[in-house]
Amino acid sequence: MVEIAPRLARQIAFIAECDKLKEIFRQTINSQSRRPENDAEHSWAFCLCVMVLAEHANVPNLDVLRVLKMGLIHDLVEIDAGDTFAYDTAAVVHQHDREARAADRIFGLLPEDQAREFRGLWDEFEARTTPEAKFAHACDRFQPMLLNARTQGGSWRAHHVTHDRAQVRGAPVADGSVVLWEAIEQLLREAVAAGHLAPAPAPSQP
Amino acid sequence: MVEIAPRLARQIAFIAECDKLKEIFRQTINSQSRRPENDAEHSWAFCLCVMVLAEHANVPNLDVLRVLKMGLIHDLVEIDAGDTFAYDTAAVVHQHDREARAADRIFGLLPEDQAREFRGLWDEFEARTTPEAKFAHACDRFQPMLLNARTQGGSWRAHHVTHDRAQVRGAPVADGSVVLWEAIEQLLREAVAAGHLAPAPAPSQP
Repeated sequence: MVEIAPRLARQIAFIAECDKLKEIFRQTINSQSRRPENDAEHSWAFCLCVMVLAEHANVPNLDVLRVLKMGLIHDLVEIDAGDTFAYDTAAVVHQHDREARAADRIFGLLPEDQAREFRGLWDEFEARTTPEAKFAHACDRFQPMLLNARTQGGSWRAHHVTHDRAQVRGAPVADGSVVLWEAIEQLLREAVAAGHLAPAPAPSQP
Repeated sequence: MVEIAPRLARQIAFIAECDKLKEIFRQTINSQSRRPENDAEHSWAFCLCVMVLAEHANVPNLDVLRVLKMGLIHDLVEIDAGDTFAYDTAAVVHQHDREARAADRIFGLLPEDQAREFRGLWDEFEARTTPEAKFAHACDRFQPMLLNARTQGGSWRAHHVTHDRAQVRGAPVADGSVVLWEAIEQLLREAVAAGHLAPAPAPSQP
């Protein structure tokens, strides 16, 4: 009878802990049931975007494996820190501190070498300096924008987001993929034309 | 004003169609809410297992990127064909035909070169002959077994699955990873000891 080795036991404990990601709900809603999307579903959809759209990255020869690994783990910190709605400017202020503490605890469940690797991937994602991190962020923003576009405005409407604010939110997509940013610009224009996204407010009169 | 190119439009249509995976529910239940897991959540958890456990594959130098790609798309056919419960022996008979028709339609939404690539990955997964497909199957079975073990028996109890049937279901894990198969054997023994998995029925008397 073989006992589970301590290294594998730590890996299994980490995987079991990560199951909690399925209960962290986002502001975006799924296209069929119209219920809120959870982080596990988002992480899968993010990775599917990476797999399908990698050719549109600004750089050739992207390390797709590293982008997928970032996609799989990028939201695990929300198990402790919760989802921070992108348009909630107050909550965004302390977001990184809360998430860094969560990263210490959650990745710390893994064997040491893997804890370092996973933390490194998350730090790389957060820093947004490598081509892989930039493309990962492009997919992280493209995916909910597409979902909003396919749900008659989804979380834009629920939170009274206007065209100009959605553009500011989406703009970093261009750092990873100009092609995807142009696609988002068109989705936003179509959403405004269809009445699913409010136009930018008129500038106030002097 | 840049229009979305036809190739990108097909890729986006595919991604939007795949959102339906979030509404295909499985027999396994999630560890926290105890609601049924859906295929998108399962696909993410499967890929996380690949990322964490790849070192336990029977072969060295596994192509992890290919295994992750299989994980992301392996259940898309269930959008049309539905989830077939692993222990439903009648439904399993026509499963492959139904799923092959689904693969034609769903991967056919992609640009031709990608449709071929994705179909090739799904065929490879189904054929279970390459080391990558064998390890992918190991994770596909390990993930729900771990979930059952962490939910006091989960779908085993709900469907009166006995130890011997769970062993038969889990045995192909050994083709991809003997280490993970031994871990499953221990999880099963612990589940029987805890009363979460019924023991094998006693052999009938002559």
